[in-house]
Amino acid sequence: MNQFINSKETLVTEAIDGTLRTAGGRLARLDGYPHIKVVVRTDWDKSKVALVSGGGSGHEPSHAGFVGQGMLTAAVCGDVFASPSVDAVLAGILAVTGKAGCLLIVKNYTGDRLNFGLAAERARAFGLKVSMVVVDDDIALPDLPQPRGVAGTLFVHKIAGAMADQGADLEAVTRAAEKVIEGVVSIGMSLDTCTVPGSPKEQRIEAGKAELGLGIHGEAGIEQVEFTNARAAMELVVDRLAPSISPGPHVALLNNLGGTTPLEMAVLAEELTRSSIGEQIRWMVGPAHMMTSLDMQGFSVSLLPVSKSIESELLFPVAPWAWPGCNAVSDITIKPLPDGLTPIKPMPSKHEKTRAFIERCCRVLIEAEADLNALDAKSGDGDTGSTLATAARALIDAFDRLPLADMTQLYRAIGLELSQTMGGSSGVLLAIFFTAAGDASASGQDAVGALKAGLDRIQQVGGAQPGDRTMIDALQPALEALGDGFDAAAKAARQGADHTASITKAKAGRASYIAESKLAGNNDPGAEAVARLFEHLVEADAKV
Amino acid sequence: MNQFINSKETLVTEAIDGTLRTAGGRLARLDGYPHIKVVVRTDWDKSKVALVSGGGSGHEPSHAGFVGQGMLTAAVCGDVFASPSVDAVLAGILAVTGKAGCLLIVKNYTGDRLNFGLAAERARAFGLKVSMVVVDDDIALPDLPQPRGVAGTLFVHKIAGAMADQGADLEAVTRAAEKVIEGVVSIGMSLDTCTVPGSPKEQRIEAGKAELGLGIHGEAGIEQVEFTNARAAMELVVDRLAPSISPGPHVALLNNLGGTTPLEMAVLAEELTRSSIGEQIRWMVGPAHMMTSLDMQGFSVSLLPVSKSIESELLFPVAPWAWPGCNAVSDITIKPLPDGLTPIKPMPSKHEKTRAFIERCCRVLIEAEADLNALDAKSGDGDTGSTLATAARALIDAFDRLPLADMTQLYRAIGLELSQTMGGSSGVLLAIFFTAAGDASASGQDAVGALKAGLDRIQQVGGAQPGDRTMIDALQPALEALGDGFDAAAKAARQGADHTASITKAKAGRASYIAESKLAGNNDPGAEAVARLFEHLVEADAKV
Repeated sequence: MNQFINSKETLVTEAIDGTLRTAGGRLARLDGYPHIKVVVRTDWDKSKVALVSGGGSGHEPSHAGFVGQGMLTAAVCGDVFASPSVDAVLAGILAVTGKAGCLLIVKNYTGDRLNFGLAAERARAFGLKVSMVVVDDDIALPDLPQPRGVAGTLFVHKIAGAMADQGADLEAVTRAAEKVIEGVVSIGMSLDTCTVPGSPKEQRIEAGKAELGLGIHGEAGIEQVEFTNARAAMELVVDRLAPSISPGPHVALLNNLGGTTPLEMAVLAEELTRSSIGEQIRWMVGPAHMMTSLDMQGFSVSLLPVSKSIESELLFPVAPWAWPGCNAVSDITIKPLPDGLTPIKPMPSKHEKTRAFIERCCRVLIEAEADLNALDAKSGDGDTGSTLATAARALIDAFDRLPLADMTQLYRAIGLELSQTMGGSSGVLLAIFFTAAGDASASGQDAVGALKAGLDRIQQVGGAQPGDRTMIDALQPALEALGDGFDAAAKAARQGADHTASITKAKAGRASYIAESKLAGNNDPGAEAVARLFEHLVEADAKV
Repeated sequence: MNQFINSKETLVTEAIDGTLRTAGGRLARLDGYPHIKVVVRTDWDKSKVALVSGGGSGHEPSHAGFVGQGMLTAAVCGDVFASPSVDAVLAGILAVTGKAGCLLIVKNYTGDRLNFGLAAERARAFGLKVSMVVVDDDIALPDLPQPRGVAGTLFVHKIAGAMADQGADLEAVTRAAEKVIEGVVSIGMSLDTCTVPGSPKEQRIEAGKAELGLGIHGEAGIEQVEFTNARAAMELVVDRLAPSISPGPHVALLNNLGGTTPLEMAVLAEELTRSSIGEQIRWMVGPAHMMTSLDMQGFSVSLLPVSKSIESELLFPVAPWAWPGCNAVSDITIKPLPDGLTPIKPMPSKHEKTRAFIERCCRVLIEAEADLNALDAKSGDGDTGSTLATAARALIDAFDRLPLADMTQLYRAIGLELSQTMGGSSGVLLAIFFTAAGDASASGQDAVGALKAGLDRIQQVGGAQPGDRTMIDALQPALEALGDGFDAAAKAARQGADHTASITKAKAGRASYIAESKLAGNNDPGAEAVARLFEHLVEADAKV
């Protein structure tokens, strides 16, 4: 089992119970487990038209997540991807339907249509007013006489729900639902299949491919297409939708089919608004999980023309949290950067010896990139070498604007360069180091004293002390020994760096999250970088 | 690329733009792309304490999704899993901080601490009041001096946000945040690693294993544990949390780490409330995506002791939709099944010949299970054989309560049995078929006439006509020919069933979603079942 479930058989009832327990008392269920799984509102007095929907499970939050004021009155839940039984639907209808009657909102699958249809017949035999609408928004197969019902169903829940909550009668609510169904079109795209509980996952979609026009039950899309990126993917989807929509403003419902990250969904939202039909999309629902297909890494877009009344029903407030709201699509508001962000730039100046010295240091770090990355991979995310090399390259590129002839300004300028070009923690530590060294230099410290002040500051902000398996384990002894020359400093740095291989209880930095066994025998990459730097300076001195 | 992105480099800015465009004008960004990615409220007048959080991206909806009244004032977004730069944080602080000052809410990662820390220093140099709290709620490694900040951070946003919105001063807001940080504990579990954009996915967790105590950046959990099911998984998590919590009521935040289905999350919610600490969990936030780790199939539980003031701050209304609300955990309300659900049961009666006849029919369907499943797999979900065999087995089990001696009652009783034991569409079609046949029999039709009436009804409710590649293609000619005996009916059924192999444009049923090429040459499984039934009846007759 590779899912957080207990058994295929108890999955849906346990999930419903979890949903009920955490719904703040707003939801209840009928006493019919395991065959009858019906979720109802607890605040329902049968005074208005009831809305009953449902179908197979595996599409959460549909439909139980949309039960509540302003949307559904009851959700009838089948097992995963299986229609609920006639008895279950009938139980749902009988439980919530009063004199105002009941609208059944059914997705166009044979099983759902039959079970809801038969239940409607049986409920009518009790004298109840029951109407039924069948949602068939999927345009994947243009010639199909019976298109599937997919995420566009949410528009029916929302608009019929708003009308019912405002007291419209069954005929009006049904007519409104039918009008939505007439106007709504949807299509989905996916990069992977879904994992059906208890079944092995089908590996149907090759890398570099996507499925277009898929349903919400793991069935194959109508075609496999080349997948290059989000923009091209959305273009394909939009190309299919465009011929089916009328001119004028629309609302888009951007649905996460399950396993797509919020980051991807936000990119897709951006692409949709920028697409060839973007001008027509004036409102957006989502991106959000609304009608999922278990863990499918895909999305669907549903479009509905918007009139004044549709707009007000879309915006009508509802109780269920799963409804993400309907927002007007807006231009992006860009505020100017605040003043004070850019420190005053130092006056550049030339100093060949300093320039050559710094460049030498930078080359050492650039050459060590791969080694340090490899070392870091043992205890972190393998990027220490690249972070330092990036810093070094940026510094070399910046020579022409550095105040090379003024040590105090140079320290600060290096700190500033590093803070502007690097993100990683080593970069900022170096920036803090040089900024503090500059401050110390300004207040009269000599070169070694200034560097020691920098060291103090990074210990303070970063929280690491000698013995914590960081660059400080090499830097601190090196700076202590620097008064005796580069040779002594290099030896101290090497000794400090090599000692880190025996420190298996890291207390700071990423290595502190790593098991001890993985640290033993490997130098800390930051300390190793410091040691190499000093060693190279000794070699370079020897060559001179 | 197996993700809906355009490029690793543009991912975060495009995602932020998508978020802004669909936020109904409530969010803006600073003009600093690509280095400075700061999302701010558009309705902010700097009159209260500002709350600034952020960190690497890949944790959506954290943090931009929580910007809005009652929660964050600004979110500073780094690249995926990378801390934002000092300049970016400083820009965020300067953009939103007024006289009331600003609280920085930082997750305890070295990079974030350094960048936010340095930015705070630089902001203070402008005379701004800036305080900073570091969230370290992860208890995965109990001895760690610097625990990570994970989903418990949301409690800080919520509680500090509620206080700030109600006008508390910076000192009070900071103190409240610190108190939350002191009390909150979190731990995560995952069944799979996450997919970092631009990097190959690490296959670290074997089938049957889970990682416990993982962070939110794809780093390995502190240990791999056996995974059996959701209950045992939650027990492990609770066992780790239990020693760290105080007696008394708590709120739990149940966080989806990304790729876990809502169905699984609901099961986990149920298990958490039923766990050994369930009694202490009086409120729940989620289950929902709050602090994700890209697409990781995992969850985390965060616990915080609840005082009266914490409760009111948790319940304080907020603008951001990503906050799923905080609900009191309640018992499950179970409503009685409505009256009228159970039809009056017929009086059982015996009739050996009828019993033998029906049993023979059932055995045919049971024996054909595998064949029909295989046939269905070519054009559907491969369960037609099982659906029919299940129906047949249930009917055999029901013999003792069937009115075998009364044909009218028997039809209806079979319909009732099938409607109560089966979910799939074939089951209901059969139920409708027999119910309608019973009605026809009651109004005086003979056996063939009654069956024809059943056929009419399923055509009406199911929408399928002859030629639509369904069981009707065999059943309809068979019933027409039945007046001439079983032999003629069987031949007609066979001819009809075999003809379905040439119908490649299915208009109803699941096959209608399937490409034509997959249908050609394969009989429709429902029609095949009907043909086999009649053929067997002929053979049985021949034997008699």
